[in-house]
Amino acid sequence: MTYCVAIRVDEGLVLLADTRTNAGVDNLGRFSKLFLWDAPDDRAIALMTAGNLSITQGVISRLNKAIERSAADPTIETILSCDSMFRAAELVGEEMRALQSLYRDSIQLQGTAADATILLAGQRKGGLHRLFMLYSAGNFIEATDDSCFFQIGEHKYGKPILDRVVRPDTSLADALKAACVSMDSTLRSNLSVGMPLDLAVIDRDALTIRTHQRIEAGDPRFQRLSARWSDALRIGFQGLPDLLDEM
Amino acid sequence: MTYCVAIRVDEGLVLLADTRTNAGVDNLGRFSKLFLWDAPDDRAIALMTAGNLSITQGVISRLNKAIERSAADPTIETILSCDSMFRAAELVGEEMRALQSLYRDSIQLQGTAADATILLAGQRKGGLHRLFMLYSAGNFIEATDDSCFFQIGEHKYGKPILDRVVRPDTSLADALKAACVSMDSTLRSNLSVGMPLDLAVIDRDALTIRTHQRIEAGDPRFQRLSARWSDALRIGFQGLPDLLDEM
Repeated sequence: MTYCVAIRVDEGLVLLADTRTNAGVDNLGRFSKLFLWDAPDDRAIALMTAGNLSITQGVISRLNKAIERSAADPTIETILSCDSMFRAAELVGEEMRALQSLYRDSIQLQGTAADATILLAGQRKGGLHRLFMLYSAGNFIEATDDSCFFQIGEHKYGKPILDRVVRPDTSLADALKAACVSMDSTLRSNLSVGMPLDLAVIDRDALTIRTHQRIEAGDPRFQRLSARWSDALRIGFQGLPDLLDEM
Repeated sequence: MTYCVAIRVDEGLVLLADTRTNAGVDNLGRFSKLFLWDAPDDRAIALMTAGNLSITQGVISRLNKAIERSAADPTIETILSCDSMFRAAELVGEEMRALQSLYRDSIQLQGTAADATILLAGQRKGGLHRLFMLYSAGNFIEATDDSCFFQIGEHKYGKPILDRVVRPDTSLADALKAACVSMDSTLRSNLSVGMPLDLAVIDRDALTIRTHQRIEAGDPRFQRLSARWSDALRIGFQGLPDLLDEM
């Protein structure tokens, strides 16, 4: 499986993805699920994927192929030339739809799921920073102030902390902490989600990627956060009122 | 959906269930999913259910019918007369299998899932306190010191805190707190799990139910625990190291 979380707050965008893939429990792999297109002063785009790996890799390859081909033929519209993040989401959705149309039936005949989901986030010059979630049909929804984070893959373990903490006016630093804590809970409870992690942070209106890092299993910053969170939970738990004698 | 959690620690057993059922999102209901058989000084048995409600209610009805009929015919073996908790699990499994065999195909023809899972916990005089999880096929597994809690229904939201806190030597009071926190996280993140809750606590070797309570939505004890846990998470979160400047 996979766990990816993207958060859109007033100050910017945070994207965090694990790298574990599996076909069955005895066939583990490591693939990056975070992809970036950085065109400083024009746009910064980040994309994360979950689901059938052949489908999602195909989407990425087709997006990049279009960018390559557009060098010779500028009439080809790409996520680096389109005029809005909404249009970028449509372009990603078109590639998803093309691949599902090509492979879905034959994949399912093999007893394998062809479903895939994609998180697309970024900002174009003159536009707002936006976050979209795309489905297998190529359709998509957008994050709003009411729902300012999206998760794909194994989303349930890490949802409670996001539900409690993340609001549009949450700082970018706190959004990053929340994404890390959410990932930490998921890593502990589900073996199909695994280190290392890929992180991207995009400041609002910066039109470039602020941070793109791989967080390895022994990363001291992530380990310190994880240990401190464990301590906080343990201390908080110890301080809870005793219900047993009242029940 | 449903969320039920059962914990087996050295000091005894804790069982906590929500009461929300739904057929689609527009057809909510309230049904108890916790059932008790208390035969003081001989045995105390608790059972929780998830999945297809017609199947699980059928299992309960058949278990009770057998107890009724055994009054006139003592050769009928019931969960109140059988000689071990393992045998009680087999008897529950037999009823599950009988109902699945009777209804499964026709339920599935209607496009509805017939799957059901059951948690069975308790202690018989002369035996240990034990916890079992039964599947739709009537087969079952038992909790051990390595895995001393089971969850059925919407289990993922509330798993991280159990993974961190619950060990065989966890006190019964802490096991109860962990079950409540696990339920609280699930209630907040998934509308298909809802108050009120049903709680049972069984002390080891007591051979009777210590506590059987309904916890209503406004219950001040549960509200206090929930509020304190929220505070602890908030304070703990605020105390986490800032990663953004280090990334």
